[in-house]
Amino acid sequence: MAEKRKKKVLVLHGPNLNLLGKRQPEIYGRLTLEQINRELQDLAKELGVEIETKQSNHEGELVTWIQESGSGIGALVINAAAYTHTSIALRDALLATGLPAVEVHLSNVYRREEFRRKSLIADVVAGQICGLGVQSYLLGLRAAVALL
Amino acid sequence: MAEKRKKKVLVLHGPNLNLLGKRQPEIYGRLTLEQINRELQDLAKELGVEIETKQSNHEGELVTWIQESGSGIGALVINAAAYTHTSIALRDALLATGLPAVEVHLSNVYRREEFRRKSLIADVVAGQICGLGVQSYLLGLRAAVALL
Amino acid sequence: MAEKRKKKVLVLHGPNLNLLGKRQPEIYGRLTLEQINRELQDLAKELGVEIETKQSNHEGELVTWIQESGSGIGALVINAAAYTHTSIALRDALLATGLPAVEVHLSNVYRREEFRRKSLIADVVAGQICGLGVQSYLLGLRAAVALL
Amino acid sequence: MAEKRKKKVLVLHGPNLNLLGKRQPEIYGRLTLEQINRELQDLAKELGVEIETKQSNHEGELVTWIQESGSGIGALVINAAAYTHTSIALRDALLATGLPAVEVHLSNVYRREEFRRKSLIADVVAGQICGLGVQSYLLGLRAAVALL
Amino acid sequence: MAEKRKKKVLVLHGPNLNLLGKRQPEIYGRLTLEQINRELQDLAKELGVEIETKQSNHEGELVTWIQESGSGIGALVINAAAYTHTSIALRDALLATGLPAVEVHLSNVYRREEFRRKSLIADVVAGQICGLGVQSYLLGLRAAVALL
Amino acid sequence: MAEKRKKKVLVLHGPNLNLLGKRQPEIYGRLTLEQINRELQDLAKELGVEIETKQSNHEGELVTWIQESGSGIGALVINAAAYTHTSIALRDALLATGLPAVEVHLSNVYRREEFRRKSLIADVVAGQICGLGVQSYLLGLRAAVALL
Amino acid sequence: MAEKRKKKVLVLHGPNLNLLGKRQPEIYGRLTLEQINRELQDLAKELGVEIETKQSNHEGELVTWIQESGSGIGALVINAAAYTHTSIALRDALLATGLPAVEVHLSNVYRREEFRRKSLIADVVAGQICGLGVQSYLLGLRAAVALL
Amino acid sequence: MAEKRKKKVLVLHGPNLNLLGKRQPEIYGRLTLEQINRELQDLAKELGVEIETKQSNHEGELVTWIQESGSGIGALVINAAAYTHTSIALRDALLATGLPAVEVHLSNVYRREEFRRKSLIADVVAGQICGLGVQSYLLGLRAAVALL
Amino acid sequence: MAEKRKKKVLVLHGPNLNLLGKRQPEIYGRLTLEQINRELQDLAKELGVEIETKQSNHEGELVTWIQESGSGIGALVINAAAYTHTSIALRDALLATGLPAVEVHLSNVYRREEFRRKSLIADVVAGQICGLGVQSYLLGLRAAVALL
Amino acid sequence: MAEKRKKKVLVLHGPNLNLLGKRQPEIYGRLTLEQINRELQDLAKELGVEIETKQSNHEGELVTWIQESGSGIGALVINAAAYTHTSIALRDALLATGLPAVEVHLSNVYRREEFRRKSLIADVVAGQICGLGVQSYLLGLRAAVALL
Amino acid sequence: MAEKRKKKVLVLHGPNLNLLGKRQPEIYGRLTLEQINRELQDLAKELGVEIETKQSNHEGELVTWIQESGSGIGALVINAAAYTHTSIALRDALLATGLPAVEVHLSNVYRREEFRRKSLIADVVAGQICGLGVQSYLLGLRAAVALL
Amino acid sequence: MAEKRKKKVLVLHGPNLNLLGKRQPEIYGRLTLEQINRELQDLAKELGVEIETKQSNHEGELVTWIQESGSGIGALVINAAAYTHTSIALRDALLATGLPAVEVHLSNVYRREEFRRKSLIADVVAGQICGLGVQSYLLGLRAAVALL
Repeated sequence: MAEKRKKKVLVLHGPNLNLLGKRQPEIYGRLTLEQINRELQDLAKELGVEIETKQSNHEGELVTWIQESGSGIGALVINAAAYTHTSIALRDALLATGLPAVEVHLSNVYRREEFRRKSLIADVVAGQICGLGVQSYLLGLRAAVALL
Repeated sequence: MAEKRKKKVLVLHGPNLNLLGKRQPEIYGRLTLEQINRELQDLAKELGVEIETKQSNHEGELVTWIQESGSGIGALVINAAAYTHTSIALRDALLATGLPAVEVHLSNVYRREEFRRKSLIADVVAGQICGLGVQSYLLGLRAAVALL
Repeated sequence: MAEKRKKKVLVLHGPNLNLLGKRQPEIYGRLTLEQINRELQDLAKELGVEIETKQSNHEGELVTWIQESGSGIGALVINAAAYTHTSIALRDALLATGLPAVEVHLSNVYRREEFRRKSLIADVVAGQICGLGVQSYLLGLRAAVALL
Repeated sequence: MAEKRKKKVLVLHGPNLNLLGKRQPEIYGRLTLEQINRELQDLAKELGVEIETKQSNHEGELVTWIQESGSGIGALVINAAAYTHTSIALRDALLATGLPAVEVHLSNVYRREEFRRKSLIADVVAGQICGLGVQSYLLGLRAAVALL
Repeated sequence: MAEKRKKKVLVLHGPNLNLLGKRQPEIYGRLTLEQINRELQDLAKELGVEIETKQSNHEGELVTWIQESGSGIGALVINAAAYTHTSIALRDALLATGLPAVEVHLSNVYRREEFRRKSLIADVVAGQICGLGVQSYLLGLRAAVALL
Repeated sequence: MAEKRKKKVLVLHGPNLNLLGKRQPEIYGRLTLEQINRELQDLAKELGVEIETKQSNHEGELVTWIQESGSGIGALVINAAAYTHTSIALRDALLATGLPAVEVHLSNVYRREEFRRKSLIADVVAGQICGLGVQSYLLGLRAAVALL
Repeated sequence: MAEKRKKKVLVLHGPNLNLLGKRQPEIYGRLTLEQINRELQDLAKELGVEIETKQSNHEGELVTWIQESGSGIGALVINAAAYTHTSIALRDALLATGLPAVEVHLSNVYRREEFRRKSLIADVVAGQICGLGVQSYLLGLRAAVALL
Repeated sequence: MAEKRKKKVLVLHGPNLNLLGKRQPEIYGRLTLEQINRELQDLAKELGVEIETKQSNHEGELVTWIQESGSGIGALVINAAAYTHTSIALRDALLATGLPAVEVHLSNVYRREEFRRKSLIADVVAGQICGLGVQSYLLGLRAAVALL
Repeated sequence: MAEKRKKKVLVLHGPNLNLLGKRQPEIYGRLTLEQINRELQDLAKELGVEIETKQSNHEGELVTWIQESGSGIGALVINAAAYTHTSIALRDALLATGLPAVEVHLSNVYRREEFRRKSLIADVVAGQICGLGVQSYLLGLRAAVALL
Repeated sequence: MAEKRKKKVLVLHGPNLNLLGKRQPEIYGRLTLEQINRELQDLAKELGVEIETKQSNHEGELVTWIQESGSGIGALVINAAAYTHTSIALRDALLATGLPAVEVHLSNVYRREEFRRKSLIADVVAGQICGLGVQSYLLGLRAAVALL
Repeated sequence: MAEKRKKKVLVLHGPNLNLLGKRQPEIYGRLTLEQINRELQDLAKELGVEIETKQSNHEGELVTWIQESGSGIGALVINAAAYTHTSIALRDALLATGLPAVEVHLSNVYRREEFRRKSLIADVVAGQICGLGVQSYLLGLRAAVALL
Repeated sequence: MAEKRKKKVLVLHGPNLNLLGKRQPEIYGRLTLEQINRELQDLAKELGVEIETKQSNHEGELVTWIQESGSGIGALVINAAAYTHTSIALRDALLATGLPAVEVHLSNVYRREEFRRKSLIADVVAGQICGLGVQSYLLGLRAAVALL
């Protein structure tokens, strides 16, 4: 347990998630990304782990961050947003790190466009949580901590 | 909060889950269904909710139980197992109850046969959690409680 | 004509139809299954035939009832509901009985999910009636009587 | 009820139906189109409504007739025959009129070529009746009257 | 043989064939429809049969002409052009007449757009001839005469 | 430039467009076809070209009009409506004339039924404009004039 | 060899097989299920093994029987009939038991409807035998004994 | 014309055509391959050309014969039978020779199994003739002579 | 009108459009991106609106620019080039801004590779214009101004 | 019974089966083709029939052997190996002979590459046996003898 | 290194490659097969290995040659030409030998017909080289030597 | 030859290739990217050409580098890694430069996930080499030099 606390969980937010709260609240809820990050920090404290949160609109930047999640990071929580459905590069980066990851989505992707049903990372992460709003992230963090 | 405690969460286990622990532990883990139910009971107590757990190999029985989850039940956690991919009747029962439900799977269904990628209930439940072993159930219960 | 009156028409209701009236009235209408059965009984009387009505959530039970519709039954009216789209067993039972059957649906299945467009029994029944609410059943009974 | 009698039902017959009775009787039955129209007239009288019947081999003509079914017509019965499967123009005309319509087919289209399974108007009409020979029309008229 | 001479062969030309010779000669050749008809008349004389040739841009008109090819006509040669790939109504008309027909195409439809590969009448005519320019028609007439 | 003014632009309206303004205004807007034609005439005058506008519900008639757009016409603006998705005959007529054409649609066809996404003329016209209401026509006319 | 005799072979018959002999003899032959079971018993005796035969129309019941084929049973012969093509639950039950199984079919499923070509258990059983009437069962029993 | 007579037409018969007349006469007719070859020889004489006829069950042998149809041969008539649908090697051989070829089939391939609808040589031959029995060959020879 | 002039239109050019004029002029024309921007500026002046033009090869940068098109921008003209067919992130950004947008393409995408037929933004923009070279942009600007 | 003994069963082995025992024993077992043939001969003797066994890597040769299985042969056992999935010529040869045939496979083809799931002969043979190693052949011989 | 020189590389050329240089030089280049073989021999000498080159139009012969590439051969270079896309028998032969193989193609198969995109041997060889003309073979030989 | 030495070959490495040697060595081998670049430099010296090597995780950056490979670069060697399968922008950049390019892959992409079988650049590069580890690059460089 003491050891686990040393490991950080990296939480990655994909493209357009910087708009959370302002954008389509009927789909994504009314919390901003900052508020979600704060709730994650609170839960991390409660669970006794450190977390780091990052957002990018660039596929290549997300790939690089995953690659760099080397020694310090013990698990990932990733909401790849649109890149979930189009990025094999993210998939390859996750495969390369070998770290356990939890895929999360705010909305229920199965109620939306057909192409959101296909995740290119679903079979390389440990598990997925979707459709539960900010709870997707919070439960995702719990899952990641369990995987540490 | 006081009100929520009065509501029960119904946890439904689909076909073959009665074999858990004995069957393909490399996929489904080593816990028996009884152990999972006990862990769920423990967490329910911690969260201040009542739960009821049921398992059936019969599609029709699962349909009937969902139908009967009338006034007493406030939310569902459902692992429909094989029926996830073949049962429109379950989908219709979930639609009919109108209760919030969380779909859970022990294994990562995206790493297995192609036909396990399609869930016939995914777009009528609130959200899904999969691939996290017994954590799928425990996080599913947390999610269900959040939906009460 | 005298002979026909001796033959019964069996009306089978598939899964979740026991919830009619309570469930999604914007799709299925506000009549309960009991009310529909009563309207069918009234029309049967008017047409001079006997009918029997049964509902089940179990695929296997519907299969058995079709099998048993032996000597006494002259025609079937069947709303297989969700099993319409997933049950080859029902299809085989209909093929086995050799009795003329009319497939009915309350809602217009073509306005709903893609998978409701495919009926596994459509090409083994005499005809289909859908989208007309309780009229689907009543016209179905008229059709069945014409097929006696 | 008094009001309904004033409304006419328009019965449209699509391409090749002018050959009924002469053509492939094993599929379409032995009644001629005139005989079917007469049976429809008889039933209309019995139901206290007026009907008008028209046949055309021209997609454009059928489109125009639907468009013109303005103030005088209260509901449509349409057997679009081959155009059922190929005419988006008919679909658009039905959408434009906004009148309730019942799609009918003499034969069971599900027992025939694969392409007859897809109806381009099925989801814009109120309901469908198929496979019941002349009864498809007669029940279709009953349904249309119910929709008036 | 004497009897056969009394039977006429009806040659039907579908949409846009009235432009032959003027239009895309690299695909359809440089003969006008009149010249093709004349060559057909010459061959008919040589073979001792009568022929009638008709062209229409209207699907419905072609349907009607096929329907009317009643007692006088013994066989059809049909180049349905674009309607080959879209008209179930033509198919139904051919089925209804029961007359032997030969489908012809000037161009090799397999070298062109994908959708020209599917003929909706191919399996209801006796045979097909394509890709041989005016020879497609002339050989088609020979085939039709053999089918008389 | 002087020469261009002598050339006419032919504007073709396909099936059901005669109902514009009356029919489904939430999709097609509130202008009638007459008002659209008048706006087109006004713009034509402004651009110094002559235009001719025609509407038909008949595929064959539209084909014939395109064929006849011989010497007098320099470019086409065509809203083939439903026939956009089903008529190879229109495509062939456009190919045959060799005139530059602009395909227009009032509504955004990509927001509607799946089958409206496929245009059978899109790759034989110069360009397409859709989703902009009456502006689709007006910009289409500008494009056609630029192609003269 | 002595050991093998102690192991029982469980023969499972799926939905509608209780109608054998009465139903569609041109497809399934004229033997009743009782006669087939008797022939199986005779052969079992000849091969020195014990067998048990069961039939159900209920998917869930078949699943349960497979689950219960615990210590006493050494191999399965299964004709899942319609459930062959629709039941992932049966597949999962077979995977869970880990017992060698032989899939049998009376008719040649490849000569029938397209959907009968796909077996959901074919790749989890040891082997398949089909199309050989009662011989499918008898050879299936021989194969099962060889797998003991 | 004098020149043409010097060129030979090679007629190739694919696998199983050596069984003609004995095999499935309801599909392929009652003439033996020898009789067809004789009718072809008679017509060749009438048309003033020489022909050579060959049959093989070996794809490789047919490929070699096409390759060798060098200087002496002016055109091909080919009934590739089963290899029509599976042999890219034959296609490549036809492409390599550059000789005009006519594809023929005795039966109407569009009335048979789905896989017979796809010809791998259709777009590399000049034209196709099918469904006309021995006439397919005779008209094919006429077409080949016209292509010399 | 006065208000509209205050609003800017943002014109976004996607990947490789910086090479315009130098690259594949037979497909994209001979104008450079600078020349197109200048023509757009001229037209903007004529129409009394301000415009801003930007080009990027980076999906993420385009996403960010769309996100930032906040208060100052009233409408978008976007040629997403290759990203049209692969970027759900762009689609999500457009959905998030809620601004009216016009999708433009220089070439007729329907005449090119199959994968260029699918636009991932087509159903979230107001309308599309394609195939008209620089006119696609100019008409797109007119459309955008009409949408202000 | 006496008559049956006079009939021979022809056992055909397709391509690469000459390598049995040496090649991929984890899939095909450790018996050589000679050993399998010997086991078949032993069983034939026991069953009182004569058999003949042949192997070829040539599709054409297998076709010829099937064709020649004329008067002397009463039934076929065929393991077409790779040609099972690619040879329509074999299918046509089997259709032509009209002899009852049993298709056998050593391995369970449903556990392997997707393309091994499709057999081009499955619906023209009497039945199939697969996945049971040498037992597939031995049971296949029993089945063939039952079909004599 | 000394050891490697003892091992031979077998270079197999598939159907129609004997025509190289004479046939479609715009696709396959102007070198004859003899010239390619000579260049391969020269390179082999330079690399210090022995090679053997063979060509066949017969699938079965190629299969047999691969089977026979027993003890003497250490690696294969194979241009299966048309059989690349249709022969599972070649695939099985390659699997059976277990020798490392390099698949080569003279032309870029991705620029040609759709069916040339699928190679049935691509996933059982070590690697592929295509589109580089004679260099495909020469680099293929280098790769094969590296695999020895 | 002297001229060729002046031209540089640009070697581009796509996303995640910076992890080579550390990541999934069973798929990608144990060499680091630096080691591969050094081997390429050595070979370049041997072949008398200059090379430049670059790696990026950003699709847009790779696009820009290809665009900038203007006057100095004579050929490209590109391992686009994940972007091979998802980037039309890379394809368009390659088309725009017009430089000969060789696509290389370390692993055999045909043995991996289905989506790795489709390359979006395969038909716009000169040729492809895959599955040969570092040899893919080295042979790719040889091929590129041959294309200079």
